[in-house]
Amino acid sequence: MRALALTPDGPVVRDQPLATRTGEATIRTVVAGVCATDLELVRGYMGFDGVLGHEWVGVVEDAPDPAWIGRRVVGDINAACGECATCAAGRPTHCPQRTVLGIQDRDGAFAERLSLPLRNLHSVPEGVPDEAAVFVEPLAAACEILQQIHVRPTDRVVVLGVGRLGQLCARVLALTGARVDAISRNPGRLELLPPGIGRGTLDEADALAGADLVVDCTGNPEGLALATKLVRPRGTLVLKTTTHDLGTLSPIPWILDEITLVGSRCGPFAPALRMLASGTVDPTDLISAEYALDDGLAALDRAARRDTVKVLLRP
Amino acid sequence: MRALALTPDGPVVRDQPLATRTGEATIRTVVAGVCATDLELVRGYMGFDGVLGHEWVGVVEDAPDPAWIGRRVVGDINAACGECATCAAGRPTHCPQRTVLGIQDRDGAFAERLSLPLRNLHSVPEGVPDEAAVFVEPLAAACEILQQIHVRPTDRVVVLGVGRLGQLCARVLALTGARVDAISRNPGRLELLPPGIGRGTLDEADALAGADLVVDCTGNPEGLALATKLVRPRGTLVLKTTTHDLGTLSPIPWILDEITLVGSRCGPFAPALRMLASGTVDPTDLISAEYALDDGLAALDRAARRDTVKVLLRP
Repeated sequence: MRALALTPDGPVVRDQPLATRTGEATIRTVVAGVCATDLELVRGYMGFDGVLGHEWVGVVEDAPDPAWIGRRVVGDINAACGECATCAAGRPTHCPQRTVLGIQDRDGAFAERLSLPLRNLHSVPEGVPDEAAVFVEPLAAACEILQQIHVRPTDRVVVLGVGRLGQLCARVLALTGARVDAISRNPGRLELLPPGIGRGTLDEADALAGADLVVDCTGNPEGLALATKLVRPRGTLVLKTTTHDLGTLSPIPWILDEITLVGSRCGPFAPALRMLASGTVDPTDLISAEYALDDGLAALDRAARRDTVKVLLRP
Repeated sequence: MRALALTPDGPVVRDQPLATRTGEATIRTVVAGVCATDLELVRGYMGFDGVLGHEWVGVVEDAPDPAWIGRRVVGDINAACGECATCAAGRPTHCPQRTVLGIQDRDGAFAERLSLPLRNLHSVPEGVPDEAAVFVEPLAAACEILQQIHVRPTDRVVVLGVGRLGQLCARVLALTGARVDAISRNPGRLELLPPGIGRGTLDEADALAGADLVVDCTGNPEGLALATKLVRPRGTLVLKTTTHDLGTLSPIPWILDEITLVGSRCGPFAPALRMLASGTVDPTDLISAEYALDDGLAALDRAARRDTVKVLLRP
């Protein structure tokens, strides 16, 4: 099959067999999305070697339980062992033995087919188009914020950075009824925010000081420093950025102001699918371009451009 | 009156008048305690200039409401404005206009008398000796952890550093029923821990990895790095150290493991007084030495020694 793989010499589109695993389902990829993490992996973050891609929607071609064959599905990217203490404690996304689709020891979705355990799969409701379902993984990551902390309808929330993930975080947080303001140095991205979400440039951020909750989706070292400046005493900072280098900070301001910092990563798929099915979050306006898998290298280049939000790949 | 004051040339014991403030109570200091923060202030942290001391018990000599005169009291060290948005939101210890007894723009308790607003004062229950009541401020700071986060009886807790504050944190956390292990590089301090609290040296810390909650009371930059190593995925780190320099750290491990960090400072006096009154916490075994106020400089030297826990000062 055709696949966009990361090799020690960089990304290539090539022919390679599907690495099937015993007892797993084989899924035909319908469409996949390029994430900032993919770009980080290409830069050498995690030292990954294999097929990239962890945002996708597909159709089950083969499965240990034949009831799944033919279903349109999305899937949790963390394949946990299911047997260790961390899994037993209900934290499979932190299983120390886990493999991660397209990120760690497991070939990903930028290919004609992929393999995942059945327990990772979720059926996509009929009314959700492929171009929305492909956003379920980052939308689940945005839902993880609500899974971790209690956002009150009277809270004032600031989202820093409204690229791929920040857009989804701002939209999910706005569902709580809280006042949400988004800050970006990219005016074009601010324009993509739906009505009801405040927007400002970096120069305007200081006016938002005293926020109950600040979510850093910037992916750069300055984001957390600015977030620390904008949050109120005893407020909460959510760190929503995974990148190879966020610099270092002194913890002293967090102690003096009794700030709570919450690291936040992968989230639950079921609520994300419900939001897509109900239409309360519609991410399809974030699609900047679509490429054929054979043009995968051009797709990666396009995804790295500042005027781009989401790039889709279609095998 | 006699007072141990910090001047631009260092600490001195001298005669000076009490800086009374309109509408406040005047309190005769009975006994005061030396805190790590006092030692930090002497090293130049916060640039404080004035009478040191914020741990104390005293007797009200004069007050706007005469009912208070003669009462034995302790007092919240943060004197808030009571009028700003932060005070109105119920966070007076974070009032941006606040003065702080012996720490910021307000003379402290290492003197024959001190001044505080009546609303800061708490009567000390009769059965609590002065030598226990003088611990109420750091004991309240230990209670602040329980005020901020939910510690479950089935949790496994690690306290790093068992100096003045760490001892109290370990004792308060053990009241929850959780398993508490304390780590110190000072074996003498570990011996002071009451039965039921586990103890280990730095070399033994790795065996405690996977803790639900780790409280850093070390006051040094290595503490938070070790805490990050010992906490489980989705666990909580409490930063209980106020010092002038904690170095800098990368936030990336907190994101990958979805750690919650909680900065923690001053706490509620009422529960601390109840713990002293009921005897569930008895801090008097932490007293290493007592000095007359006139020997205040020797007391500061003694408090800085590694074999010392709490030093008391008596005017």
